[in-house]
Amino acid sequence: MSSEAVVIVGRKKPWNYVTACITVFNSGSKTLIIRGRGENISRAVDVANLLQRNIAGARIIDVRILEESISGSSRMVPVIEIVVENPHLKENKR
Amino acid sequence: MSSEAVVIVGRKKPWNYVTACITVFNSGSKTLIIRGRGENISRAVDVANLLQRNIAGARIIDVRILEESISGSSRMVPVIEIVVENPHLKENKR
Repeated sequence: MSSEAVVIVGRKKPWNYVTACITVFNSGSKTLIIRGRGENISRAVDVANLLQRNIAGARIIDVRILEESISGSSRMVPVIEIVVENPHLKENKR
Repeated sequence: MSSEAVVIVGRKKPWNYVTACITVFNSGSKTLIIRGRGENISRAVDVANLLQRNIAGARIIDVRILEESISGSSRMVPVIEIVVENPHLKENKR
């Protein structure tokens, strides 16, 4: 797969997104991007840490911060993208 | 200076921390760390972006995410550290 899977973190509880990430890993992706915007950035970091702490092999390999403009406004919104790798997700972790 | 200056982002408005960063740069530091914990992470990212967008030469060179344990509890809190470099702060930017 050339493009990486992206899990967008919104306002739900962190574990919802952790499960989404596990699903992505189980579907065969080796890396994924956890993306959060504005006030969801803190939650995105929380999700990445939960994933790293609880899923064997999951590892944060890169963190990027960017800005996005909101359509129809000159205001910029901060965005975080956390790249997580899982080189050896075991079947029994499903 | 061997240790880097750290600006800790709390609950004030982002511009308060941008001014703090400019003061650090003006005192002679070439790099500084913007650090935010928990829900202040989003604000820390905002501060870093504001700095990069508005101060000539300021550039985000590294982003790290970590966890810290709260004393007396097993809960972990996410932490972000953003390293910003300012190789050529002009005197007139003061």
